[in-house]
Amino acid sequence: MLIEQEDKVRTELWRVSQHMLELKSSIIREILKISSQPGVISFAGGLPAPELFPVEELKEVAAHVLDTYGPNCLQYSVSRGIVPLREELAQRAEKIGIPTTPNNILICSGAQQAIEVIGRTFLEPGDYILTENPTYVGALQAFNCYQARYAPVEMDEEGMIMDQVAEQIERYKPKLVYTVTNFQNPTGITMSLKRREQLVEICSNFNTPIVDDNPYGQIRFDGEEVRDIKAIGGDQVISLSTFSKTLAPGLRIGWMNGAEDMIAIFEKVKQSTDLHTSTFSQFICYEFVHQGKLDRQIERIKPDYRRKRDTMLQAMRDVFPEGIKWTEPEGGLFLWVELPKHMSAKDLLPKAIDLKVAYVYGQPFFPKGDGENTLRLNFSNATLEGIVEGITRLGKLFAENM
Amino acid sequence: MLIEQEDKVRTELWRVSQHMLELKSSIIREILKISSQPGVISFAGGLPAPELFPVEELKEVAAHVLDTYGPNCLQYSVSRGIVPLREELAQRAEKIGIPTTPNNILICSGAQQAIEVIGRTFLEPGDYILTENPTYVGALQAFNCYQARYAPVEMDEEGMIMDQVAEQIERYKPKLVYTVTNFQNPTGITMSLKRREQLVEICSNFNTPIVDDNPYGQIRFDGEEVRDIKAIGGDQVISLSTFSKTLAPGLRIGWMNGAEDMIAIFEKVKQSTDLHTSTFSQFICYEFVHQGKLDRQIERIKPDYRRKRDTMLQAMRDVFPEGIKWTEPEGGLFLWVELPKHMSAKDLLPKAIDLKVAYVYGQPFFPKGDGENTLRLNFSNATLEGIVEGITRLGKLFAENM
Repeated sequence: MLIEQEDKVRTELWRVSQHMLELKSSIIREILKISSQPGVISFAGGLPAPELFPVEELKEVAAHVLDTYGPNCLQYSVSRGIVPLREELAQRAEKIGIPTTPNNILICSGAQQAIEVIGRTFLEPGDYILTENPTYVGALQAFNCYQARYAPVEMDEEGMIMDQVAEQIERYKPKLVYTVTNFQNPTGITMSLKRREQLVEICSNFNTPIVDDNPYGQIRFDGEEVRDIKAIGGDQVISLSTFSKTLAPGLRIGWMNGAEDMIAIFEKVKQSTDLHTSTFSQFICYEFVHQGKLDRQIERIKPDYRRKRDTMLQAMRDVFPEGIKWTEPEGGLFLWVELPKHMSAKDLLPKAIDLKVAYVYGQPFFPKGDGENTLRLNFSNATLEGIVEGITRLGKLFAENM
Repeated sequence: MLIEQEDKVRTELWRVSQHMLELKSSIIREILKISSQPGVISFAGGLPAPELFPVEELKEVAAHVLDTYGPNCLQYSVSRGIVPLREELAQRAEKIGIPTTPNNILICSGAQQAIEVIGRTFLEPGDYILTENPTYVGALQAFNCYQARYAPVEMDEEGMIMDQVAEQIERYKPKLVYTVTNFQNPTGITMSLKRREQLVEICSNFNTPIVDDNPYGQIRFDGEEVRDIKAIGGDQVISLSTFSKTLAPGLRIGWMNGAEDMIAIFEKVKQSTDLHTSTFSQFICYEFVHQGKLDRQIERIKPDYRRKRDTMLQAMRDVFPEGIKWTEPEGGLFLWVELPKHMSAKDLLPKAIDLKVAYVYGQPFFPKGDGENTLRLNFSNATLEGIVEGITRLGKLFAENM
């Protein structure tokens, strides 16, 4: 308590902006701290499987980059991102039907920075954003910095319910629609083709930009690819992606793909925040893609994640008591659990931690704080044995508290 | 013109925040684009000498990091920065008389991000910041995002004039004082010990935090070290530094050193913008410091930069016409030129570019846009021959326009 008091004194003396004082640290990151204690089986983070990181390949690539580009890969570089990487990313977008030139691409420090730059560019205090309900908590955290308000829309197994979208846009005139169309974080739901087309149509009519945060789209291990919403919506859509889930999050390389004139504005905004993203990391990603290593890496990840998802689903079927529902995503890193209405996933978390198993309760993903009976499970990070053991412990805990 | 029109249409449709539309791209970065054309001798950027980058050592260190830390150096990590790097930086601060624990350190994506995070934490639209006149243009760009206003203070060869500081604080109640005490960008001026003590005293009396942006302090190649202002002011001072000028800017690793409770707030703010800074870059910097390579690298840089500065100063004495004044800094990367009052460094720049030599004119460094007769010269990036040739061309140009 002493620290909190001192905190208050100094920050009052120094006149820190009030809404920054009130900014909450990400609950997920707090839970991650707890769940990283030794012996805890963690389904909490959004961490890729560390055993799949291509450590040896990256060693080769890093050496190759330094040999080939020398000082250039260590120097300041342009805010938009190095040209060869933007060229590769443009080509990859073209392959899935998105007309793209390097001028449509802005390299960011992770997709998180792309979200933050978009928030900063659009939002004035009190502006509305339309999101799925629930949605990615890191996006809420970024938008909260700009004192955003939310118009959340319910989902079914096909994604956002479009009647609600039109209604909410008409009512709240949101500055943008923020969606995670593929293997959504936190629910694992993928928006159907029909809904994508409808969303583009509605947003075109209302001149509302769509931000599609798409870190997981490349990690589909079941079912059929759904046409990318940017391939449908063109300049109406700003698409975000990242190397964090396919290569390695520690490089902090993400990007956005948008209309040239918007990218020019986003570039200025990004420039003021950190000049540019690590030149060295960018060259490493470029070479990793260019040498064909990324596609091979993605193919290596998929069967492993499928096996982990299957293991988790089977364990859930085996041990979870009746009355609990969950999603069965065809890709990505997460699935979503709904306990019976009277149960609180938040209240159960400390008991789960006592049992040495961690998850993230659902509430922080809801812009308005509902969803007390929900929780998110990550299946990419734990081992197969860990998954079975952890789900067994959770099943027991839930059964005792039904 | 077509593009500008389209730009206007879409950004109006999409309701981009007005002050973001008005945000200016850094003039330095625009000049850099021109000056990177082949054949141009550039004194424009703040680019370290590329020939001094320790490319081979970094190759070894990168391989060592991947061998030693494996997946850990590629995974998500805590927002505050990896512990071993914060420990090393704390120890280095202790060595120059600043009591520091790892909890006083926040790793940022370059010192630019540290400025941005501080701006975001403190500023509401219309708030004042006290700065040197002129000051670092990237700080102005970051603070402008928050619609800051400025209380600039004139400098003499000892730095800010303290009577003006007290006066401006009393009058404008700035949220913070932003200063570059060592080898200031753009002037090369170092604040004297006496002035540092006075600044701390004044700011303590007014409860005004001091942000000392210190990227150049480690690159002193002449004269005597002046006691670090954070060693004098303690928690009154937030100190920013970076690996950009000592190791390599392309890694984008900077940090701040501040009171624990403030660092906790800054950490939350940073978290919302990019989760954390590149884990891989952080481990590389950690090993580079830990293995003693950074200190050796700094000793390698100094004589080279001294030689470049001396060469530039000698050439200026040889060829600049009477009536032109300049600073003679004892470290850092820049010196500052004052032409006679009636001359415009901005108007002369296109002519200089025609002569294949580039500089940055002074105006953008002045919060209120004065200083039309001033310009900044960088001496770290060009070769010795380039320096002589470039200064000779500038001397001729100035003489013709006196």
